Amino acid sequence: MEAYFDNAATTVVFPEVRELVTKLMGEDYGNPSSLHMKGMDAGAYVKTAREIIAKELKAEPKEIIFTSGGTESNNMALIGAALANKRAGNKIVTTTVEHASVSACMKFLSELGFEVVSIGTDKNGIVDTRKLVEAVDENTILVSVMYVNNEIGSVMPIEEIGRLIKEKNSKVLFHVDAIQAFGKMIIYPKRLNIDMMSISGHKLHGPKGTGVLFVKNGTKLKPILYGGGQQDGMRSGTENVPGIAGLGLAVKMVYENLDERVSHMKKLKDRLTTGLQDIENVYCHSGEAPHIASFSFVGVRSQVLLNKLGERGIYVSAGSACSSNKQLVSSVLTAIDLPKEQLESTLRFSFSEYNTEEQVDDAIEVMKEILPILRRYVRKK
Amino acid sequence: MEAYFDNAATTVVFPEVRELVTKLMGEDYGNPSSLHMKGMDAGAYVKTAREIIAKELKAEPKEIIFTSGGTESNNMALIGAALANKRAGNKIVTTTVEHASVSACMKFLSELGFEVVSIGTDKNGIVDTRKLVEAVDENTILVSVMYVNNEIGSVMPIEEIGRLIKEKNSKVLFHVDAIQAFGKMIIYPKRLNIDMMSISGHKLHGPKGTGVLFVKNGTKLKPILYGGGQQDGMRSGTENVPGIAGLGLAVKMVYENLDERVSHMKKLKDRLTTGLQDIENVYCHSGEAPHIASFSFVGVRSQVLLNKLGERGIYVSAGSACSSNKQLVSSVLTAIDLPKEQLESTLRFSFSEYNTEEQVDDAIEVMKEILPILRRYVRKK
Repeated sequence: MEAYFDNAATTVVFPEVRELVTKLMGEDYGNPSSLHMKGMDAGAYVKTAREIIAKELKAEPKEIIFTSGGTESNNMALIGAALANKRAGNKIVTTTVEHASVSACMKFLSELGFEVVSIGTDKNGIVDTRKLVEAVDENTILVSVMYVNNEIGSVMPIEEIGRLIKEKNSKVLFHVDAIQAFGKMIIYPKRLNIDMMSISGHKLHGPKGTGVLFVKNGTKLKPILYGGGQQDGMRSGTENVPGIAGLGLAVKMVYENLDERVSHMKKLKDRLTTGLQDIENVYCHSGEAPHIASFSFVGVRSQVLLNKLGERGIYVSAGSACSSNKQLVSSVLTAIDLPKEQLESTLRFSFSEYNTEEQVDDAIEVMKEILPILRRYVRKK
Repeated sequence: MEAYFDNAATTVVFPEVRELVTKLMGEDYGNPSSLHMKGMDAGAYVKTAREIIAKELKAEPKEIIFTSGGTESNNMALIGAALANKRAGNKIVTTTVEHASVSACMKFLSELGFEVVSIGTDKNGIVDTRKLVEAVDENTILVSVMYVNNEIGSVMPIEEIGRLIKEKNSKVLFHVDAIQAFGKMIIYPKRLNIDMMSISGHKLHGPKGTGVLFVKNGTKLKPILYGGGQQDGMRSGTENVPGIAGLGLAVKMVYENLDERVSHMKKLKDRLTTGLQDIENVYCHSGEAPHIASFSFVGVRSQVLLNKLGERGIYVSAGSACSSNKQLVSSVLTAIDLPKEQLESTLRFSFSEYNTEEQVDDAIEVMKEILPILRRYVRKK
């Protein structure tokens, strides 16, 4: 039985979205900057997508900027805000468990001379809010905290953080990487004091190569791509109309039955957790996110286990998939202080609405079958 | 009869490409960074596309970087090269007729303290090579010249420029915006002394949101997007696998019958030019590119004419379509010293292989019909 449990890495595109994307590549293929009807028709699809997403965020359409994906959204928010606000201060506060598309930007900003302070987490992978707020001072221009951790699914107290940092310094900008959160929960950024929020299309059954940066009205931000001045000058480049329209439709579909979709994932996650914890020396690190489960299978290296599961058609991830082939020690697993034997043997299972109870039961059975064999093999070596 | 003559703005996606994109959104939808089979299958599509494009450029696969489009490619080349080489010098040489995605980057680089020198053109829109080479000195780190102008289709003497600037300063990097050239002619960047070359997918029947930056081995370049380190660290972000694979296929298809495709466009362009020049006070500004024709219809403003043609199902452009709704005075039309009455009345017709002789004949007939009426109306006002 094939089971794709790597939905935090990427998801299959909804059939309805595929159909729309295909239509827009063949029929309404105009360039929104063109002044004739084909251009206007294309522009209308972009407008609709912008309105859909704005509505789900209780934002205004002009607060929605389309990007080429989560990485660009995070880069735009962090580099764009740091460069635009450098006269106001020099300090940026973030966490030690951000996705690489945040932490690598922070490294770049450090090289440019910004002071970047990274705050650690508790043993559940939740940032230390007290320390984070303490780090915010008059010189701080930007705080960036992910909503849901991509490796273990810990959920950060974004509302509390937003409130406290703004109390401390009302001028600080609050960026939230919501790439693993959006589509799994309702998020109204302005109620949470969020100034900028990153969204990725391909994590929620939308097309790859699509993303959004929510930018609250009045936020001082420099673009990171220059050109024809599309999207009010904030993101130049011909709009990827099929991708944008597809993203809009995916968002609409996800939020139409959010409760049902999420409770299905949650049920699968709980079922898997119960099943796997029957096995000796299996440790669970999952946070509260409905779609991400993380376990250590002590005695077998993640990669070995991942390959064995793959042979049985079960696709999971060793840590985060977004780190491009490199064997990095996971940041969040280190941050939550896992012993080495657990660090080395962690797998992530991540769910979508397309997963089934049968797939979960099969995965538990397969694991019960192969784990003792692999452990025996390792001991014999 | 409907006729889309705005193919320099964007093109319809090839049916075969649409099919492939659709397949990859639904079946092989993995994340190339995932270590399981779904990830590897996705990665294989990226590899194939990279090999196809490398082959057409007589380049190595690792010299091909996938981007979100021509704008990102130009930004990456210019900003990335300027920042990576600022210790070697401070001067950048370009032309006055570049696309906004080059000229806006130059403005940004000026603000950062680089000295940007822009060289003008002759009356045919071809850059003054002598002056351009003169401007290159020991302090020059980068020269950027477009291959084919997007508004009138003038073709720059890239081979000569590449040779002469490298003779003058062997360390200078040569960037070519080939967005309107690639897919219309054979280009081997290394034979032309090109270090970086920008390509856009949606100009050659590939998907929107896709592009390439060719970067010659050994070129010092900083990334402009930071994150998971995909594409050898040069362009982070989950690869847009369907888009990339679609782009690869489009390139393959375009180059399979390049001569035939191009001579068809050229024939249509010549037919239109002959037909329109029968009309009084119509002036042609087209360069040598096979797919771009530019005319002034003195006495009627471009926008009025564009709208009237649109009513008859004929879609053209007033200047360049990539400048996002803004009423800019075109840079190349100014550079070639058009009198005001011609500047204001210029339309661009741009062709693809899907255009037909019947469409061209119809456009000529419609123009002969509406132009006298519009001119009379204008005179009466």
